[in-house]
Amino acid sequence: MKNKVSLAQKLAMFSDHWAPRTVATLNDYDVMIVKLLGQYTWHRHADTDDFFFVLKGELEIELRDRSVTLGPGDLFVVPKGEEHRPHARREVELLLIEPSGTPNSGAPETAAPRQWA
Amino acid sequence: MKNKVSLAQKLAMFSDHWAPRTVATLNDYDVMIVKLLGQYTWHRHADTDDFFFVLKGELEIELRDRSVTLGPGDLFVVPKGEEHRPHARREVELLLIEPSGTPNSGAPETAAPRQWA
Repeated sequence: MKNKVSLAQKLAMFSDHWAPRTVATLNDYDVMIVKLLGQYTWHRHADTDDFFFVLKGELEIELRDRSVTLGPGDLFVVPKGEEHRPHARREVELLLIEPSGTPNSGAPETAAPRQWA
Repeated sequence: MKNKVSLAQKLAMFSDHWAPRTVATLNDYDVMIVKLLGQYTWHRHADTDDFFFVLKGELEIELRDRSVTLGPGDLFVVPKGEEHRPHARREVELLLIEPSGTPNSGAPETAAPRQWA
């Protein structure tokens, strides 16, 4: 990696939702940003924890037995295998870190393709 | 992980420098916060990339052939094996993510012990 990454600059480059952009790699992990709006589907990642860090907005993550509401500067790690459903009533900007190739939907056939920003 | 982590709340709990606090784990990685002030030593991590994300302040990371200056919302990954020296002219607050057990100094004998916040 030669240069720093300004997340504000990268976030200004796209406006679609639920389509993560990779901005860096950390060993075999992708560091990504994403914009969310609305409710996602229930899903889980059988092989990995799922890291969320809110940059802007308020994100509710529903789990089967509880829900957590994250604002800017809050982070949460959904444990491996645990079903969850993100819900953004207004637009949310997030930093995500996941093993490279992890399908965002939990299943390869419905996953967003890897895109760099 | 049962609850969200508010980084502001965690950062208010300590004031020492160069002593990372683990706030969550992501698979076999530690998610940490740290406060820096002053110049660190040249070091490298032979086995891992080194992830920096600035929450507050301005951090210069010197590398042997260049330097990068990071402000809030900027991130940088020092490639595995590359020598670097962080320099905080004023206090900086950072989010760090590293494989659990990675010595912050590059060597186990000089590393800060793992502490939770």
